[in-house]
Amino acid sequence: MIDLRSDVKTLPTEGMLRAMTTAPLGDEQEREDPTVRALEDDLTELLGQEAAVFVPSATMANQIATLCLVERGQEIVGEQHRHMFRYEAGGPAYLAGAVVTGLPGTAGVFTGDQVREIAQLRDSEHRPRTALALVENTHNVSGGRVWPLPALDDLYDTRDELGLAVHIDGARLFNASVALDVPPARITARARTVAVCFSKGLGGPAGAALVGRADVLAPARRIRQMLGGSLRQAGVLAGAARYALEHNIARLADDHANARTLAGLLAEGGLPVDPAGTGTNFVFLDVAPLGLARDAARDRLRAGGVLWSNSHHPTLLRAVTHLGHSKADVHTAATRTIRALTTG
Amino acid sequence: MIDLRSDVKTLPTEGMLRAMTTAPLGDEQEREDPTVRALEDDLTELLGQEAAVFVPSATMANQIATLCLVERGQEIVGEQHRHMFRYEAGGPAYLAGAVVTGLPGTAGVFTGDQVREIAQLRDSEHRPRTALALVENTHNVSGGRVWPLPALDDLYDTRDELGLAVHIDGARLFNASVALDVPPARITARARTVAVCFSKGLGGPAGAALVGRADVLAPARRIRQMLGGSLRQAGVLAGAARYALEHNIARLADDHANARTLAGLLAEGGLPVDPAGTGTNFVFLDVAPLGLARDAARDRLRAGGVLWSNSHHPTLLRAVTHLGHSKADVHTAATRTIRALTTG
Amino acid sequence: MIDLRSDVKTLPTEGMLRAMTTAPLGDEQEREDPTVRALEDDLTELLGQEAAVFVPSATMANQIATLCLVERGQEIVGEQHRHMFRYEAGGPAYLAGAVVTGLPGTAGVFTGDQVREIAQLRDSEHRPRTALALVENTHNVSGGRVWPLPALDDLYDTRDELGLAVHIDGARLFNASVALDVPPARITARARTVAVCFSKGLGGPAGAALVGRADVLAPARRIRQMLGGSLRQAGVLAGAARYALEHNIARLADDHANARTLAGLLAEGGLPVDPAGTGTNFVFLDVAPLGLARDAARDRLRAGGVLWSNSHHPTLLRAVTHLGHSKADVHTAATRTIRALTTG
Amino acid sequence: MIDLRSDVKTLPTEGMLRAMTTAPLGDEQEREDPTVRALEDDLTELLGQEAAVFVPSATMANQIATLCLVERGQEIVGEQHRHMFRYEAGGPAYLAGAVVTGLPGTAGVFTGDQVREIAQLRDSEHRPRTALALVENTHNVSGGRVWPLPALDDLYDTRDELGLAVHIDGARLFNASVALDVPPARITARARTVAVCFSKGLGGPAGAALVGRADVLAPARRIRQMLGGSLRQAGVLAGAARYALEHNIARLADDHANARTLAGLLAEGGLPVDPAGTGTNFVFLDVAPLGLARDAARDRLRAGGVLWSNSHHPTLLRAVTHLGHSKADVHTAATRTIRALTTG
Repeated sequence: MIDLRSDVKTLPTEGMLRAMTTAPLGDEQEREDPTVRALEDDLTELLGQEAAVFVPSATMANQIATLCLVERGQEIVGEQHRHMFRYEAGGPAYLAGAVVTGLPGTAGVFTGDQVREIAQLRDSEHRPRTALALVENTHNVSGGRVWPLPALDDLYDTRDELGLAVHIDGARLFNASVALDVPPARITARARTVAVCFSKGLGGPAGAALVGRADVLAPARRIRQMLGGSLRQAGVLAGAARYALEHNIARLADDHANARTLAGLLAEGGLPVDPAGTGTNFVFLDVAPLGLARDAARDRLRAGGVLWSNSHHPTLLRAVTHLGHSKADVHTAATRTIRALTTG
Repeated sequence: MIDLRSDVKTLPTEGMLRAMTTAPLGDEQEREDPTVRALEDDLTELLGQEAAVFVPSATMANQIATLCLVERGQEIVGEQHRHMFRYEAGGPAYLAGAVVTGLPGTAGVFTGDQVREIAQLRDSEHRPRTALALVENTHNVSGGRVWPLPALDDLYDTRDELGLAVHIDGARLFNASVALDVPPARITARARTVAVCFSKGLGGPAGAALVGRADVLAPARRIRQMLGGSLRQAGVLAGAARYALEHNIARLADDHANARTLAGLLAEGGLPVDPAGTGTNFVFLDVAPLGLARDAARDRLRAGGVLWSNSHHPTLLRAVTHLGHSKADVHTAATRTIRALTTG
Repeated sequence: MIDLRSDVKTLPTEGMLRAMTTAPLGDEQEREDPTVRALEDDLTELLGQEAAVFVPSATMANQIATLCLVERGQEIVGEQHRHMFRYEAGGPAYLAGAVVTGLPGTAGVFTGDQVREIAQLRDSEHRPRTALALVENTHNVSGGRVWPLPALDDLYDTRDELGLAVHIDGARLFNASVALDVPPARITARARTVAVCFSKGLGGPAGAALVGRADVLAPARRIRQMLGGSLRQAGVLAGAARYALEHNIARLADDHANARTLAGLLAEGGLPVDPAGTGTNFVFLDVAPLGLARDAARDRLRAGGVLWSNSHHPTLLRAVTHLGHSKADVHTAATRTIRALTTG
Repeated sequence: MIDLRSDVKTLPTEGMLRAMTTAPLGDEQEREDPTVRALEDDLTELLGQEAAVFVPSATMANQIATLCLVERGQEIVGEQHRHMFRYEAGGPAYLAGAVVTGLPGTAGVFTGDQVREIAQLRDSEHRPRTALALVENTHNVSGGRVWPLPALDDLYDTRDELGLAVHIDGARLFNASVALDVPPARITARARTVAVCFSKGLGGPAGAALVGRADVLAPARRIRQMLGGSLRQAGVLAGAARYALEHNIARLADDHANARTLAGLLAEGGLPVDPAGTGTNFVFLDVAPLGLARDAARDRLRAGGVLWSNSHHPTLLRAVTHLGHSKADVHTAATRTIRALTTG
């Protein structure tokens, strides 16, 4: 069975497991874990920022960013389909009392002008003040799309003018960096805060970090403690993260190449591949032209030895390539997919 | 100067002031105010419900309804331009931790199918549960439009099927009842809760009520106390409200006729009147075809002796008729408006 | 029947009702109500502060102060029996997410040293930061006791040193001012915020205000709007409040004299009067030495033509004098009380 | 250097590290991690409950329990020094909007009568409703004291009568079970929810669980997701937890014996040992009779080769024994402690 459902399904490799069991450990709540401290230093430098806090998950990194940046009753704007709005169980409203406004985007990207228009509406005592613009990069539901640098720079410029914050939900930030062939800091240095994740394409079992301006992150450890994200010997996970930063970033290019290969093979095989899904390591396959219901198609694929997952869109199936897939796997997966869907 | 800005600008009449100063009073926090109790009984019967709680404002009635009906992190759906989302300072998120999702509507109306689609998306542990559908009737920003009864019945049917609540934000409920020529209870009896307001077309200085199912409202007085809405001798305001219920509902038909007259006169005078604004007591005037910026047009009107207000739409001015306007006022206002906007 | 239950039971006098019906009115949400504006100016000057916001109740004034002064998860300290902790339905936790810590006090008074000790404990990331010290003056459950000026000055000094805020819950502030024979500003000028109430000894039907530093109150109108405390023609209540400020402050001395008279007569009549209850306009009567349960004693008093209320303490009944009571009423009440409790 | 500061300082042993790296893994967010599922089954049985949820920390288990059991504005009661009130950064107020009331306890234990008295006070609309009684067992700041079973049974009985919930904060639950020589379920089966921790005496690097009634825990995974506690390949931590349950519970008796030995040796050496600290694996040493400030004493001990930590009490130092300490370590630590504090 070849599992293309998500890059969150990756299992730690031998090398990573060895890194976890040999990392020096200590009590992270008292800042005594040397592996966590080293990881936080690595990230601060890598992202061109001032401070970092290790957390158990990217969701927690996003929630802490919200709690650091948004006061009760203030407004967050972001692309209307983005992950934090759809998948994080209402956290920004529940935890922060934030008003969340979705902007219509193009491939996950919205513009500074859209933010300006909303922020200027919010000037009376009847309306919430806009405090934060959220950028998901790469953008999950639009197919792992990368924010073009000019669009990002436009947003940073608008932010400076309007006095609001930009947070990068960078659960797949390194995919964007590799796809654009720029250092991660080129994307993140002007953000107020950045969330990164070690359990997606980087292959870690768990763990993430919130990275950002030192003054903004001043209350972050206290909030992490309150949410229950302060672990003791966190170095076991931070060891995996450090291994991932060292060994698993550059190789994301292989995942992107594999996704392109897969899309190409499927198209050659006559299947309707949505080009939106080939931004980085995602492939979207439209079952509508095949006259198939999505769940039925997925079941057929499973029976044929390959696992796809549902996307946000009712007729699109999604495949995600990751370090668990060799080139050969991709060819096999393409063959199995074509056979499953084109044989009556 | 004729002030057409809003029906919230009404001043209490002599008769209402007399009702306020002669109402029997007591300590409402201990349920000793006979005027408040009588008002709550009146409303329960009028709206076909089981219980009522007097509050200082319709905003508070809406907030208490949300806190009674929605748990932390649950979702509220409603028309995307509705008043509670745009004007209540983020209250549902701030106070209730609710996720607010705006649906695209037609003239303020959305459908049961739209709610069903959203509610069914919310079935995983990653997404908030939909708990409440909000109906604003009449609908402010679409021009005082009335929800057609079939649309409302469709929503009640969907609600029954999906197990969620319907709250009517009825700040101008009696305008809807008069426009449809049905008793208010025909609109509200199937709702879980209803907010009504005495300070808009009904002419009171302040005061509103939350009316609804007895079990839902069980915590409402405690929440009112916490929010600071439990007054002591509240009968001074409830006296105005009882006077308004007796004297100022049927006469809303005059306001609606005045709005139609105003719209007709303006159209005859060559001004572009938006038909959306003539649902009940609202008139919308589009300044774009006149080649005028909205603020400039409003200033010219003020100089000409008539006050219009900005609507939610960047080129529309809004007039609202109310009990402070005679037929003669409306004719004078039309003349002044035409003169101010059509003379060089 | 003479009703001694509380000064919240006062009914508006003829003069006050006339002030309410003749006050010039406007739309307070747009700052067009001249009576509200005049009241806010009066209060700012009277309390030696910079800004004021009219609200429907003292509870709302306290809640808005908390929301202006305390961030999510920060700590409020105050005397452990004070009104905001016991009677405001959990508002500081519910609305502000604040941690509320009660300090053991003497007659409602706590010390700067107690605050310093708590605030210094709160220095780690595991513990909430202390943001606010609450002073209730006069202090309700300890019997209308006045904070001595040196104790208040000590608290202001500590506050300056520790960088936290002081809020005065002054629902009966003017009783304190009259009892101390100092201008109200002597008590309030160094506070960050002050809540005052017009519906207790001042005799208004409803209405209160939050007064304080201009920068602190900057978000107060927005919060008032969200909570539902922004009324339209609020001048009807503000007119009563202005009348109360002009006519009903100095006369609080009569209430205090009446309370002392009542306590003296009861003591002469052989009843155990708790001296704690004679700070201002409160009298506490201990039913324990009489061998009576509190509810039974209260019922006997009611049958004898005088209403007392339960205090916070299981064996104490409470009487509160106010402008509805003449000297003759007090003598009659004393006679009835003695007769009811001492006759077999 | 012998480190007696806390049992949170334990490092994973070889055996535990091997369990972590050989545990079968999967995507826990989709319930595909077999090690997490097995752990949850183990715990459900061990504690006599119906359901379990793995989380990163005991703090998160406590927060989720609060969010499952307490509505906005409701009251939590517990011993006034307990861990959740003092160390969890205000979480119950911040996250749940809960009012937290501390009861004076004896060695961390409070009574059903105390809860009844508070709960019955809370019956008016002015006061919050009591929803939850919190039991910390063993009780940290009172010195690892165990709740006697009759006290616990009394609380369960009161709970049944009053209709409120009991949550056991069992970060050191297995110490209590071993000290009482009863199965854990004898302590926990009647609780609504129980938090257990793998990173204290059990020796894990991180990880905890919330265990309880199935209906109460129904929203727990959604809340865990929102807080950021849903990990992907969580089996790496759950593997350590399963190892701990198998190998490290019975041996807690050694830690308790070591604590008694240490206390005895110190007392023989003339040092003032507080008997409160010998409930389980805690020893408290009073520096006051030695004429030493606590920080100075701690520094001297550090210089002498043994680390003690500050307790909650200003003159008490705390030592905690755990699986990292052999009997020989304890004798050495005693010798070093006596030498450091008794030699001029």
